[in-house]
Amino acid sequence: MARKIAKIKVIPLGGLNEIGKNMTAFEYKDDIIVIDCGMSFPEDEMLGIDIVIPDITYLMKNKEKVRGIVLTHGHEDHIGALPYVLKKLNVPIYGTKLTLGLVDNKLKEHKLSGSVETHIIKHGDTVKLGEFKVEAIRTSHSIADAVGLAIHTSLGTIFHTGDFKIDYTPIGGDVIDFHRLAELGQKGVLLMMADSTNVERPGYTMSERTVGVTFENIFRNANQRIIVATFASNVHRVQQIVNAAHKFNRKVSFSGRSMVNVVNVAMDLGYLNVPEDILIDINEINRYPDNEIVIVTTGSQGEPMSALSRMANSEHRKLEIQPGDMVILSATPIPGNEKTVARVVNQLFEKGANVIYEALADVHVSGHACQEELKLMHSLIKPQFFVPVHGEYRHLRQHGKLAQTLGMNSEDIFILENGQVLEISKEGAKQTGNVTAGNILVDGLGVGDVGNIVLRDRKHLSEDGLMVVVVTITKENGQIIAGPDIISRGFVYVRESEDLMDEARAVVKNALQSCQTNNVREWASLKSAIKDSLKSFLYEKTKRSPMILPIIMEV
Amino acid sequence: MARKIAKIKVIPLGGLNEIGKNMTAFEYKDDIIVIDCGMSFPEDEMLGIDIVIPDITYLMKNKEKVRGIVLTHGHEDHIGALPYVLKKLNVPIYGTKLTLGLVDNKLKEHKLSGSVETHIIKHGDTVKLGEFKVEAIRTSHSIADAVGLAIHTSLGTIFHTGDFKIDYTPIGGDVIDFHRLAELGQKGVLLMMADSTNVERPGYTMSERTVGVTFENIFRNANQRIIVATFASNVHRVQQIVNAAHKFNRKVSFSGRSMVNVVNVAMDLGYLNVPEDILIDINEINRYPDNEIVIVTTGSQGEPMSALSRMANSEHRKLEIQPGDMVILSATPIPGNEKTVARVVNQLFEKGANVIYEALADVHVSGHACQEELKLMHSLIKPQFFVPVHGEYRHLRQHGKLAQTLGMNSEDIFILENGQVLEISKEGAKQTGNVTAGNILVDGLGVGDVGNIVLRDRKHLSEDGLMVVVVTITKENGQIIAGPDIISRGFVYVRESEDLMDEARAVVKNALQSCQTNNVREWASLKSAIKDSLKSFLYEKTKRSPMILPIIMEV
Repeated sequence: MARKIAKIKVIPLGGLNEIGKNMTAFEYKDDIIVIDCGMSFPEDEMLGIDIVIPDITYLMKNKEKVRGIVLTHGHEDHIGALPYVLKKLNVPIYGTKLTLGLVDNKLKEHKLSGSVETHIIKHGDTVKLGEFKVEAIRTSHSIADAVGLAIHTSLGTIFHTGDFKIDYTPIGGDVIDFHRLAELGQKGVLLMMADSTNVERPGYTMSERTVGVTFENIFRNANQRIIVATFASNVHRVQQIVNAAHKFNRKVSFSGRSMVNVVNVAMDLGYLNVPEDILIDINEINRYPDNEIVIVTTGSQGEPMSALSRMANSEHRKLEIQPGDMVILSATPIPGNEKTVARVVNQLFEKGANVIYEALADVHVSGHACQEELKLMHSLIKPQFFVPVHGEYRHLRQHGKLAQTLGMNSEDIFILENGQVLEISKEGAKQTGNVTAGNILVDGLGVGDVGNIVLRDRKHLSEDGLMVVVVTITKENGQIIAGPDIISRGFVYVRESEDLMDEARAVVKNALQSCQTNNVREWASLKSAIKDSLKSFLYEKTKRSPMILPIIMEV
Repeated sequence: MARKIAKIKVIPLGGLNEIGKNMTAFEYKDDIIVIDCGMSFPEDEMLGIDIVIPDITYLMKNKEKVRGIVLTHGHEDHIGALPYVLKKLNVPIYGTKLTLGLVDNKLKEHKLSGSVETHIIKHGDTVKLGEFKVEAIRTSHSIADAVGLAIHTSLGTIFHTGDFKIDYTPIGGDVIDFHRLAELGQKGVLLMMADSTNVERPGYTMSERTVGVTFENIFRNANQRIIVATFASNVHRVQQIVNAAHKFNRKVSFSGRSMVNVVNVAMDLGYLNVPEDILIDINEINRYPDNEIVIVTTGSQGEPMSALSRMANSEHRKLEIQPGDMVILSATPIPGNEKTVARVVNQLFEKGANVIYEALADVHVSGHACQEELKLMHSLIKPQFFVPVHGEYRHLRQHGKLAQTLGMNSEDIFILENGQVLEISKEGAKQTGNVTAGNILVDGLGVGDVGNIVLRDRKHLSEDGLMVVVVTITKENGQIIAGPDIISRGFVYVRESEDLMDEARAVVKNALQSCQTNNVREWASLKSAIKDSLKSFLYEKTKRSPMILPIIMEV
């Protein structure tokens, strides 16, 4: 019997060919570990869907092997699927303090607190998970307490950067652990998996600290209220807003559910320092002069239900935008959100606010490495094999090319898809089979119960509406004794289209009569007759094709 | 009897607080002229809508006064509503040769050729339209043959820039007519209306010619097919692609309906010069080696039905993307199109194409003036009053501010909304009343028959689908004799949710029975009972709220 060659399987379950739902499984002998467990937002065609999570069929099939999920940081696209996954696969969770603080919040919301085993790890810590030793290495990102992970095995080390940038002057905490990265590179890294988000951008991402300078300049000249919208999770950004407020003698108040939640967690855990005497409740803002107020809020993506959108719409219960308010959008629109952000900016301007956004000032920096930073990472780690991650296909491809410009051979670079397995052994790396991977759609309480048929129907309904045709016939001889009644929704405004509806009813009646004349009795045929006649009539009259639902009642 | 003071009314009917459907009416004594007649694309919430056109109620009410529509250039947001408007208000159309060539195409499609009076005007021409003398002044834009319009009246001159940029080295044709602009400014301009699209961008828009240099560099190094996607109407861009093809000994073929249409018009009218020996039909491309082919195509915005999207999807009948094809997206995504463009780029990369887009090379320049160009225009024209146009509210506001930095008083700058009337007389300018203005939605053959109720229903259906409940009762005593039957679409995948549907049926049955017990007979009450019981049941079970349509049949 030939001895089986030891090999590590790298199994991406999310995060490839997409920005979102990051999740990768690593399998070695009888152990599986998972890095990250993120969600993504629905694509435009996923009508009515709340969020999207990875398909974990493969993990469920190998349940007994899974030793735990290790988190790189606390962004939703890395932790957002945890509650859904943990309900099916309850395994221990490992992450840094802030990351687990955010996870705890999430578990509470889903009533999972107490039933999940969580372990805090610090930069520099190594945890043993079966055959894997996972070491957390300090990086910088647009959330505090982010780590890259070195996964040590008897076959060699895999380094996963997590989401990172190189910030030489980070806010709170030290610079990325160059020395440990250099040491790893020196000893030899089998495989690197690295963040590809900003691979299209030349140069360097600016330091988070540069945004602080902009804030100070804006705060210095502002003479009314200041409202800053940013990502709740960007604790360093929030810290800089607080610092500027403190410097210019303004009180700070937080608004928006996720902002308040994250700020509380970050303050409790010591990641955010807000002097007690400047923190005020949103209910207290009117007790102070306008030029002594800063409000930090959610809504930087123009989300319709967010605090900022509600302020812009006069729907916020505590705060209305006043002429002269200075509103800063300290974020860049995520692709797809450009129009909703522009809409909020316009509304704010219309209310007389002075709006500062990325097009007008440097009020945001990215959390992801640009080309020169990526080159530095590659040069430090010098991996034998490379898998670009965290990006659409174009990003992965560009990242592969970038690695080639640094001297890697194209055959050592693997552009994978979710579910495509990469096997690494002493003999090299190769792409082998596929495992199930894909999108599980979450809609309300339903996880996975909305599929392509439902989405196709929603699309059809959204474009042309529907027409329900009901007719009651007798059991004995199929005689029509009520109807056809026609009800439409989302098609035309009925009161102004009575003639059209009358004609439609006549068309259906004719179709049914000709069925009777020809002695056609089967329901399927009757329904087809209704559908076909009505469809061509409506298309001819309106060039639209509403969904037609024929219903036959028999008495 | 007091003598009426002569005044000009400026009546924006579209193009303010939006990018699209540009249309402005000018009224003086008994004459009205209209500048431009554009369409816009539907907003995200306008589900199923094809295009949006301006509301011309005001013009219809003053039909006998309207002397004509003068066009600044041939882009859809300036001419796209013409066929719809002309069907209701058939007035003469004035425009430059290329603009009218594109209009003719449009009239043909709508079977209006011959029934509309069109007049070609040249740069420098003045046409008399009642009390107005309209002078066309040469500008530069991302379409050839664009003009600004000086509208001379006995009260003074109004200058409308149209869409413009300042290009010192334009392709084909001369530079913007600085001398005439300077002369107008010298004589005194009452009011300027100017393009605000790029007011957020500092500096200058690069010359169209710079893109030609990029093309040459790319073409020089390409050794397989080259496919360039760009706006069909950007004749100068197309000319530069043709020039590069010619220089590097490649044949050129055009693909995509609107590309072929516009290219034909532009060649016929002498705006595009394609050497006969390099122009080939798309059917001939396979007769030449790959390194002798350039294909110019539509689809630079990722439009799902465009030629480029079909190539990327293997749905194009004549051309399939091959590994090594060089694909250039010579355009920038219009806000809202970022994700569809990214999708096409990813698909092209997946097919092995070498894709070059704006993030990677200078393959596009804007057609609109940036801040320094706007300052030059303001400084030449030195208007007494200023109305920023062609922009969202934020653009109009920023443009107003820019004018102030050049010395204008804020009270001489008017940020208007569509429908808000500005009156100018010897005594000054003031905002007076409002006229009807707004969005008319075009859906198939329907113009204006889809309104808020229909859109609200489409949105509801798109998010949660629907449930139709049908029950047949007797006329005599309201006894249920068939049903309740339940049919759902876009809600859940029924085969996997049979239990839920069974329960739902039981819920409805109970509700109806309790109506009978309580002797409730009115249809409205029965329907409410069905709706309410089902709604709360479904929300509790799924946290979703499908549209519920109760239908009662009586026999």
